[in-house]
Amino acid sequence: MPPRQESASSEILKCDLRAGAKVQADDLAVEEPLEIRVKDRSVAVTMRTPGHDHELVAGFLLSEGLIRTRGDIAAIVDGEGCEKELYSNTLNVILSPGVDVDFEKLTRHVFATSSCGICGKASIEAVHQHFAPVDSKVTVAMETITRLPGILREAQATFSRTGGLHASAIFDRYGKLLVMREDVGRHNALDKVIGHGLFKNLLPFDSHVLLVSGRTSFEIMQKALAARIPIMCAVSAPSSLAVEFARESGQTLVGFLRGETMNIYAHPERIIAG
Amino acid sequence: MPPRQESASSEILKCDLRAGAKVQADDLAVEEPLEIRVKDRSVAVTMRTPGHDHELVAGFLLSEGLIRTRGDIAAIVDGEGCEKELYSNTLNVILSPGVDVDFEKLTRHVFATSSCGICGKASIEAVHQHFAPVDSKVTVAMETITRLPGILREAQATFSRTGGLHASAIFDRYGKLLVMREDVGRHNALDKVIGHGLFKNLLPFDSHVLLVSGRTSFEIMQKALAARIPIMCAVSAPSSLAVEFARESGQTLVGFLRGETMNIYAHPERIIAG
Repeated sequence: MPPRQESASSEILKCDLRAGAKVQADDLAVEEPLEIRVKDRSVAVTMRTPGHDHELVAGFLLSEGLIRTRGDIAAIVDGEGCEKELYSNTLNVILSPGVDVDFEKLTRHVFATSSCGICGKASIEAVHQHFAPVDSKVTVAMETITRLPGILREAQATFSRTGGLHASAIFDRYGKLLVMREDVGRHNALDKVIGHGLFKNLLPFDSHVLLVSGRTSFEIMQKALAARIPIMCAVSAPSSLAVEFARESGQTLVGFLRGETMNIYAHPERIIAG
Repeated sequence: MPPRQESASSEILKCDLRAGAKVQADDLAVEEPLEIRVKDRSVAVTMRTPGHDHELVAGFLLSEGLIRTRGDIAAIVDGEGCEKELYSNTLNVILSPGVDVDFEKLTRHVFATSSCGICGKASIEAVHQHFAPVDSKVTVAMETITRLPGILREAQATFSRTGGLHASAIFDRYGKLLVMREDVGRHNALDKVIGHGLFKNLLPFDSHVLLVSGRTSFEIMQKALAARIPIMCAVSAPSSLAVEFARESGQTLVGFLRGETMNIYAHPERIIAG
């Protein structure tokens, strides 16, 4: 059996103030750089957990607005291999004939200028130039929403071994788990589920629920919007800009989803009683 | 009293499956983009929690290897203001006469090529071209280390209000808190404490302990190395590359620091009994 790419074993010192110290093997979440190239041009380097790398690349390109559909990608080609030879750390995307990408788009969404210079408002407007607000009429029972964290925890086999991975998961409106991905980077975990949707022809995720294991930021909301996800749930807190973004983008935003309680920060109309 | 910049109040819906929903005011951690310019040239946009922005900029430039000393910075000048007019979201760094920066350095550390292409090993080697390993002989009592998370929690006044901020704190070897900073981005929180050290002439932090509230990644270790911090502690897990980096950089790395227990992943010789 080949070694798992998601975790690596390491000898560490386990210490207890009273019981003392002992050497022990421990599982670590693997972190390695991945260079994403499009038409042989380097567009990003991300520190990620190896595994589902093609999904990560495809999801990144979609959520950053560089591509629109699965058909835009002709192939994803491995670059030079790493010396460990378990995975490649450079992937090059070959676009389909006639597909052109605007490389400037990649960082422009936070660079947009407006009367107030660079600020959250300008950032939201810039994103909306690429992705229209969602208008999905889907509803989900509050009881269904409260069950999702438990389902995610059960699916996080790796998490229990390393304790060092963020998770993103897509559910249908009845709480059925469609895909779950983990990564040392929370943006990467979300890009991987979006890339999975792209490859499996599941996009748009417009009657679906996204659950992330951590906090919600502006960038997470932007990526969710790119995949047309109407309901976004998180175990922890959202930032002010995530809330502002969700309200202007028509996205339902749930935070502090724990036990039978949750906070709804934006568009509660999609969460229904019973 | 002016409104705090770190948090913003928002009306949300608090829901409980049994008790129902009620509208309530809630504090959110503020997230806004900050554009960092050097000599009028944009070098980075980071999503950060406003406050201590000059520290963030100075710490970022130091931890990314663009500047070396406090004297390299002649001034940090506010750019265009945000419409909220509480803070500026563009800061321009004016360098002292004779100081030159290599703009290419900024992202090159993960772009370094080697025989195995782009990989963790190449990343570590590239960072070591800028920052030599630490060789501090400082020791800290294990009992002192176990007290740090409690001190950090007490200092995190904002955290208790929003639940959405990462924290970084610098302690001396006797466990005295020197500075604590919070931010929606964990890299930013660390850059702020490093920038504080730069402005207060506390650098290098070579007999100090860093504690971060979350996980430890390659980039966190790299920033700690830039500030010459010999002992790095985290409440949660490190990644594989963080551990590899610490071992090669001479940094003591502690993870899962909880209650009276901890894991030591690298260079345990600086943590002593009693």
